[in-house]
Amino acid sequence: MNQDSVVIKKISDEIFMNGTAYSNLKYLCKQVGQRLSGSAGAALAVEQTARMLREAGADTVYLQPCMVPQWVRGAKEIGTASLNNGKSMPLNIVALGMSVGTPANGITAAVVEVKNFAELDAMGPDQVKGKIVFYNFRMDPRHINTFRAYGEAGVYRSQGPSRAAALGAIGVIVRTLSPVIDDHPHTGATRYDENQPKIPAVAISTSGAEELSKAIAAKMVKQVYLKTNCKQLEDVLSYNVVGELKGSEFPDEIITVGGHLDSWDLAEGAHDDGTGCVQSIEVLRSLKAIGGRPKRTVRAVMFMNEENGLRGGNKYAEIAKMEGKKFIMALESDAGGFTPRGFGFTANSLQKEKLLSWKPLFVPYGALEFNEGGGGADIGPLRGLGTALIGLNPDSQRYMDLHHATTDVFEAVSERELNLGTVVMTAMVYLVAQYGL
Amino acid sequence: MNQDSVVIKKISDEIFMNGTAYSNLKYLCKQVGQRLSGSAGAALAVEQTARMLREAGADTVYLQPCMVPQWVRGAKEIGTASLNNGKSMPLNIVALGMSVGTPANGITAAVVEVKNFAELDAMGPDQVKGKIVFYNFRMDPRHINTFRAYGEAGVYRSQGPSRAAALGAIGVIVRTLSPVIDDHPHTGATRYDENQPKIPAVAISTSGAEELSKAIAAKMVKQVYLKTNCKQLEDVLSYNVVGELKGSEFPDEIITVGGHLDSWDLAEGAHDDGTGCVQSIEVLRSLKAIGGRPKRTVRAVMFMNEENGLRGGNKYAEIAKMEGKKFIMALESDAGGFTPRGFGFTANSLQKEKLLSWKPLFVPYGALEFNEGGGGADIGPLRGLGTALIGLNPDSQRYMDLHHATTDVFEAVSERELNLGTVVMTAMVYLVAQYGL
Repeated sequence: MNQDSVVIKKISDEIFMNGTAYSNLKYLCKQVGQRLSGSAGAALAVEQTARMLREAGADTVYLQPCMVPQWVRGAKEIGTASLNNGKSMPLNIVALGMSVGTPANGITAAVVEVKNFAELDAMGPDQVKGKIVFYNFRMDPRHINTFRAYGEAGVYRSQGPSRAAALGAIGVIVRTLSPVIDDHPHTGATRYDENQPKIPAVAISTSGAEELSKAIAAKMVKQVYLKTNCKQLEDVLSYNVVGELKGSEFPDEIITVGGHLDSWDLAEGAHDDGTGCVQSIEVLRSLKAIGGRPKRTVRAVMFMNEENGLRGGNKYAEIAKMEGKKFIMALESDAGGFTPRGFGFTANSLQKEKLLSWKPLFVPYGALEFNEGGGGADIGPLRGLGTALIGLNPDSQRYMDLHHATTDVFEAVSERELNLGTVVMTAMVYLVAQYGL
Repeated sequence: MNQDSVVIKKISDEIFMNGTAYSNLKYLCKQVGQRLSGSAGAALAVEQTARMLREAGADTVYLQPCMVPQWVRGAKEIGTASLNNGKSMPLNIVALGMSVGTPANGITAAVVEVKNFAELDAMGPDQVKGKIVFYNFRMDPRHINTFRAYGEAGVYRSQGPSRAAALGAIGVIVRTLSPVIDDHPHTGATRYDENQPKIPAVAISTSGAEELSKAIAAKMVKQVYLKTNCKQLEDVLSYNVVGELKGSEFPDEIITVGGHLDSWDLAEGAHDDGTGCVQSIEVLRSLKAIGGRPKRTVRAVMFMNEENGLRGGNKYAEIAKMEGKKFIMALESDAGGFTPRGFGFTANSLQKEKLLSWKPLFVPYGALEFNEGGGGADIGPLRGLGTALIGLNPDSQRYMDLHHATTDVFEAVSERELNLGTVVMTAMVYLVAQYGL
């Protein structure tokens, strides 16, 4: 234990003194930018993170081809509410990811506001048919962990369009999933029910939602006009990017550490999930820099297409099944590059016992919360191989403010918070590489 | 315990649903702005936080007069290094707080760089006399808690000028106390040794320090010119602002919760320490809002002059000694409005035992670190009355990036982080008010 704490301090010092995660993130955000699956940005990100992995000292760097969906937003969306007083109110909207676009001349209809599905269902087809449904569900600020509030509110983005379509609605406006009131609409994927008509769906900023709601309550709104230009193109070839440090004693026991390389198209995908990518690269670099080679093989993986398909995560697990190696643990960082609070574990009881025994080693780094449950969307498919899944849990207070919005930029990341998260990730990878699971 | 956790959840919900700390902070930063002791901003801050305390529902709001030093910066400082190639290099500097200004035509001299006091002492008077000393001590990024690195580096700001003057230096440049490399110089108080000549002292931005150091190493620097316009005026009258909720059962047992109202003059003093002030006001508001009255008296105190004199903190303790009441506990928030990590305690063993027994109640709010030692500069003088001192310990990763710099603005504060800090402060005050210490 004492020896391990010395090694972990060495890792920490290395990362805080010579870390490259922050400068790599700057490159990824400012030189590459948005990286939506199938876009030129995503292709450039594949090339550049492969370079970063080589520079980090990976033994081998390779690409795993996979087909990804190609959804494109097109020109900036337009939303307007026409009011009874003859004026019109602009609506700050963005199309939801994977949604269909409106016809070329947009859609125009009366709008009905509901706070939740119960209110929608109570209305029934009579009040919904031919109209635009406005879901104004506010993320509950009382949950300390903002992911819990996100989970509750997220169903309106994912299921809202099809549930409204089932009652005859022709379009949907969803209040942005954010706990703060500002004028930045957040995008994110919706999921159509194949048995219902696919209707256009947009997110409106939280302040826009409040204003629209007030105008509706005052019976001021005649009609709403929505024009979106998004569409689904043919699937295209893309890649996971993998960099490997081969294990010195048990090369066939694989530890996967990763984040997802794709991002939404509105901003730079700094916290979602540029940080997870550059942290995973830094895990490799710092392990190598402190000297020696891990006993087990460590793979840093940049997963493609987490946001709207999970094709990369599925492809990685599919190939893993064929490799005939032991995928003992996978760690994902996809909750932002904020100061680390701890980890969440999805593992069997023996694995968990071992993981929990290491908890004291993380106390000096503030990663005190070792919780049941967790992992990450991209590593989820590995569970079928008996892999222990671990999710890095950073502090969640600021994440939902900027998640999937134009505000998710490099400047919103703290260099020290990013590095501290990387320290605890590397420490966890080191321990599993040293002792197995 | 279960009943307490219910009350604390009620406090948390109240703060996250109806909290006013963030809007009060916005007012304090944007409508009041800088609040250096003795300035018009400080006077306005006294008036406005008294209003906020009344609006928060305090039974009584009053001012405690105290004389404060009045140091003024004057016009923007100028720094230039003249180089051997005939060019000159601008130095991004600010005068250190409490430092004397240069003569009207500035000072011009050769510069010597030292990394620390050992290097300075090794040089001796021969190499220092008549010159400007440049302390280029880098804050150690390896300390996880940035306050530790700040403590190590802080001696060059506080003692550096007089130690250089003792060897005959005529001016001092101190590398900014920040772990990040950027072009924002941070001010902060220096302390002259009364037995040495008082020489002008400035801070240079970290990137400026790196550039100056490189130029010196390349033997490019002929002379440095410094022009500062700061001076010390006569002491003036100012105030602590106190708002009180009288205890229902033990009104003579006083719980003090506070932050400091003054700030440095370069920015808005958002994290230092606007957040501590608005949090303390919110403690009162939320305790009252959840119904009932605390058993013991709770006082929210905005202390004046923490940054360059501590006159307010000393005055509060001086008056407390005369009040003949029991000052059982004081809690200060003066480490930024970041997500809370826990508390530090300076208390006797019985008090500590009780405080530690409440730790499980804070787990849902992430305040897991209950540490030995801590409090706050302003409440420190209460220790003489046997008061248990508690410091709120927020996450320290981002604080030193913006501390005492132009970047310490409202926009750097997260609403949820601020509120979460307030929740754990209020919970602690509630428990002490309920059970005593």
